[in-house]
Amino acid sequence: MALLLIRNDKNYQAWIDALNEADPSIEVLTPETIKDPANATMAITWKAPKGSYANYSNLKVIGSMGAGVDHLFEDPSLPKDVILTRVVDNKLASDMQEFVSALCLNHIRNLKTYTKLQKEGIWKPTDYKRGKDVTVGILGFGTLGQAVGRMLKDIGFKVLGWSHSKKKVEGITSFTQNELDDFLSKAEILVCLLPLTEETEGILNYKLFKKLPKGSYLINVARGGHLVDDDLIEALNTNQLSSAALDVFHKEPLPEDHPFWNREDVIITPHIASMSNAKSVSAQVAENYQRMENGEELKNQVKADRGY
Amino acid sequence: MALLLIRNDKNYQAWIDALNEADPSIEVLTPETIKDPANATMAITWKAPKGSYANYSNLKVIGSMGAGVDHLFEDPSLPKDVILTRVVDNKLASDMQEFVSALCLNHIRNLKTYTKLQKEGIWKPTDYKRGKDVTVGILGFGTLGQAVGRMLKDIGFKVLGWSHSKKKVEGITSFTQNELDDFLSKAEILVCLLPLTEETEGILNYKLFKKLPKGSYLINVARGGHLVDDDLIEALNTNQLSSAALDVFHKEPLPEDHPFWNREDVIITPHIASMSNAKSVSAQVAENYQRMENGEELKNQVKADRGY
Repeated sequence: MALLLIRNDKNYQAWIDALNEADPSIEVLTPETIKDPANATMAITWKAPKGSYANYSNLKVIGSMGAGVDHLFEDPSLPKDVILTRVVDNKLASDMQEFVSALCLNHIRNLKTYTKLQKEGIWKPTDYKRGKDVTVGILGFGTLGQAVGRMLKDIGFKVLGWSHSKKKVEGITSFTQNELDDFLSKAEILVCLLPLTEETEGILNYKLFKKLPKGSYLINVARGGHLVDDDLIEALNTNQLSSAALDVFHKEPLPEDHPFWNREDVIITPHIASMSNAKSVSAQVAENYQRMENGEELKNQVKADRGY
Repeated sequence: MALLLIRNDKNYQAWIDALNEADPSIEVLTPETIKDPANATMAITWKAPKGSYANYSNLKVIGSMGAGVDHLFEDPSLPKDVILTRVVDNKLASDMQEFVSALCLNHIRNLKTYTKLQKEGIWKPTDYKRGKDVTVGILGFGTLGQAVGRMLKDIGFKVLGWSHSKKKVEGITSFTQNELDDFLSKAEILVCLLPLTEETEGILNYKLFKKLPKGSYLINVARGGHLVDDDLIEALNTNQLSSAALDVFHKEPLPEDHPFWNREDVIITPHIASMSNAKSVSAQVAENYQRMENGEELKNQVKADRGY
């Protein structure tokens, strides 16, 4: 019996080292080192090449190496009868908090404009907005969204959250289901932190952008699949949105000829808002492996029917 | 009897409007509109042209329109026997918090690098530091410095403060006087928020930079006079400092031919970290005017011997 790692980038060593340190009793293998595929009882994966799961007939548990699990569902070879898990990394939440806070603060303090003015040698002080006068709407107000919302609130922003079910977070108004339009009408900065599901795919489209206050700022730190790229370009060209910061894309790396690259009103970062780290999550992966071995209930299970 | 406004930029209207709204009984005049200079009993000023005060023989109070009062002491015509005041604007503190937080977060998340990579069409994710692993030293741990320190701590940074006298702020180690070297040796980001006095002029020099951890980041949001420009350039050229963000300069606007403009390792902003606003401080100016009239003690007095 062994724990199998599968990654599209084949960067295994950090995971092997971290898992060996967390629990030396677990045999950790990869598609390259496993002799008998039937030995793999649990796999943890990140964007496994399509069809990977078909090779391993004894998998009882398949886990994502990150918080996102959409890559699991994209593979038709994912067995139906396995337990699915993800990792919950407190550092992922604090990384996301710090990244989104940086983007929101840069936006209200015009820091991108000053970078440009410096290049041109121009001294031109301009008015700025204060956090307390700006409303940020968090679309996807789960664990990560609430953490980001709390930090933005502490910094001074007005914060609203929208999610499947109503949440209680001090100082933040929580919207749900049929209150989406009301939520959107107030969001001068919209932060997408939704899980990617059939329901949320393409949710960031022109129809939604039209419901935001004119000139709003979009931050997508969830998944590229949430955004309809052409609709964003139309919303920017018509000034319905003033600008956008995108950390995630339909295809990553973002193709060289994609029109986003050359737009001054789009900030591109290469999927670095929050990167999960083998060291910080290996203990919980090892624990789940032992729970599986002992027939105990696993932690951080994913509900396959909801897709998150 | 009248309240006189003097500003180098002659932008009076916002101040006249705000003071009229705060207290319509006060006559508000400017050097251009005052008929009899002897009528001016209180002046509030911002970088008044040198020699301005000599024209007004009945001034009992001279106040700064901002938090900084160094511009008052730079004018030899400042009478010795007047009461000096400044404004205390809570919004100045929150503006400074938001600005410095933006700079610190941008720094650890490499956002300036990604702006450059986007221009070049390059997708290149890189590791980043987390706030909890980075120590920020606040040089000048007074009202403003403590406010900035508290927000950085809330965001997750490790924060130290250095000031004239020891301060108690939860979660922040306060250094004083002879502990400067110890403080500096830990500051991976150094934020200057000192008042500009004879003691602190030129304090940001090569000798001080050498005491910081190699590769530190300097943020000067106090006054241009704190920094020895050539020493910063030497520290950057020798990689003793990795980069700097400067909001204040010896001469503002920063002269077109200044070497800072073209450096990729220097971020220039045009003195916008925290701008005082007529609307938010006019009530306290009006109150001090009435206190003067009634022979009461004035608020927010400045001690001329300390220069702040």
